Amino acid sequence: MTQSKKLHPFDQAVRLTENSGIFTGETSHLYQNMVGPYGGMIAAIILNSVILHPKCLGDPLALTVNYAAPVKDGSFEIKPMPVRTNRSTQHWYITLSQENEIAAAATIVTAKRKITWSSQEKNMPAVKHFSEVSPVSTKNLPPWFNQYDTRPVKGSIPPLFEIKGEKPFKAAQSIQWIRDNPKRKIDFLSLTAFSDSPAPSIYVRRNKFVPAGTVSFSVYFHASREELDASAENFVLVDVKSSRISNNYCDQSGEIWSENNVILASTTQIIYFKE
Amino acid sequence: MTQSKKLHPFDQAVRLTENSGIFTGETSHLYQNMVGPYGGMIAAIILNSVILHPKCLGDPLALTVNYAAPVKDGSFEIKPMPVRTNRSTQHWYITLSQENEIAAAATIVTAKRKITWSSQEKNMPAVKHFSEVSPVSTKNLPPWFNQYDTRPVKGSIPPLFEIKGEKPFKAAQSIQWIRDNPKRKIDFLSLTAFSDSPAPSIYVRRNKFVPAGTVSFSVYFHASREELDASAENFVLVDVKSSRISNNYCDQSGEIWSENNVILASTTQIIYFKE
Repeated sequence: MTQSKKLHPFDQAVRLTENSGIFTGETSHLYQNMVGPYGGMIAAIILNSVILHPKCLGDPLALTVNYAAPVKDGSFEIKPMPVRTNRSTQHWYITLSQENEIAAAATIVTAKRKITWSSQEKNMPAVKHFSEVSPVSTKNLPPWFNQYDTRPVKGSIPPLFEIKGEKPFKAAQSIQWIRDNPKRKIDFLSLTAFSDSPAPSIYVRRNKFVPAGTVSFSVYFHASREELDASAENFVLVDVKSSRISNNYCDQSGEIWSENNVILASTTQIIYFKE
Repeated sequence: MTQSKKLHPFDQAVRLTENSGIFTGETSHLYQNMVGPYGGMIAAIILNSVILHPKCLGDPLALTVNYAAPVKDGSFEIKPMPVRTNRSTQHWYITLSQENEIAAAATIVTAKRKITWSSQEKNMPAVKHFSEVSPVSTKNLPPWFNQYDTRPVKGSIPPLFEIKGEKPFKAAQSIQWIRDNPKRKIDFLSLTAFSDSPAPSIYVRRNKFVPAGTVSFSVYFHASREELDASAENFVLVDVKSSRISNNYCDQSGEIWSENNVILASTTQIIYFKE
């Protein structure tokens, strides 16, 4: 695949080439995590296969990605299959494979939406404006952290743990401002990736690293394409909290807010941890 | 399919017969909703196909069901497909079909779990004990309500709307005690069905019915099989809240608590509504 200098690294990383309904892509070293690509990037790539599909109806509404095995460096194949198409919704099943083995399996619902009675039901957490929060140092962190400007307000990402004498957080909650680095217009793909950006709740709660990885990850898209366009290149606020950590698995769920107090997406995930 | 007098109606409704990897079942008139079976029952039946599958590894961890079309009265076919089996996790894709058309598509992750560091991260809402809350009248409600003893504490199910002069709820939140009627031991199947029991948040928030139906529904199972066994036939408390209602879709997410303050499952769903 030709590397284009004009493309944002994120757009380069989600690039897919289609041939007879099979989409081929390549892992980007820039979005590398400890093992394989950053999970949020894998989900964004899977979503992109549906958005690019010639039969795609409407915009993303709901996404669930199950991470079945580590994705290895190199090329992968994505097969998006329309399962059922209705008047205003479309149901997809998508697999991501390497060497003919499925590494991730996903479902996506897309929808055409009309303007209806609407109401936001939660208040944005009262936090410092991103201009008053320092970006975290990405030193010693996996490469993908360099592709974001992350400004943690609470819990959040590992560098906070390095503060000596810091006590474990009482709550397994992470709140952080985040945007692409370099800046990039917010869209359904980046919103998907932002949703996976907080550290696993087990890290935050125990104030240390343990072997861990997301098993199932879901995003509901509340924002319309027009709203996302209006969000421009601003930061979003990601606020996620765990409900229970138990016997190898912990969850976390919450919202992704625009700078202007609008819930763009809600997200939930369940994470394997070892000990 | 022979009707057995010995089986609980719930067990009768989730019954499946396997033939060469295809599971066949029949809709139960007892769990009928306004159109087709109660969605929580459809999800429980789909989960049952994986639990009954001879290759199933471990217990349910994560479930996502996408409702693609109404399920008609009569027989249906479920095809559970193991997508990838690891040492401690197994990934499934499952379709429910009628007349060779897919009506629901789902993913399920099952897992073998070990005892690890564990912590519950949320507090149970302070509500009246179920013994102090009256069961709702199921008069004028779809049949499936008769299969439950539902005791609403907040928001919750439609009869509350009938109180004359009642103002719309300020928050699209439902809290209710619920158990099977007649009583039945809590298991992964009934926990799945309980998770879908609160009314769509759009009903609660607007204090009226609008045409609505769940599009995507997820459950994370935090409880072990042993914990569920210990829960016996008690009530569970279901607490769900919406984050945003916008342009044909509203979400709701929350927890299912045991009577003893333990989070048995967390759940989320996104619901279509018409106006």
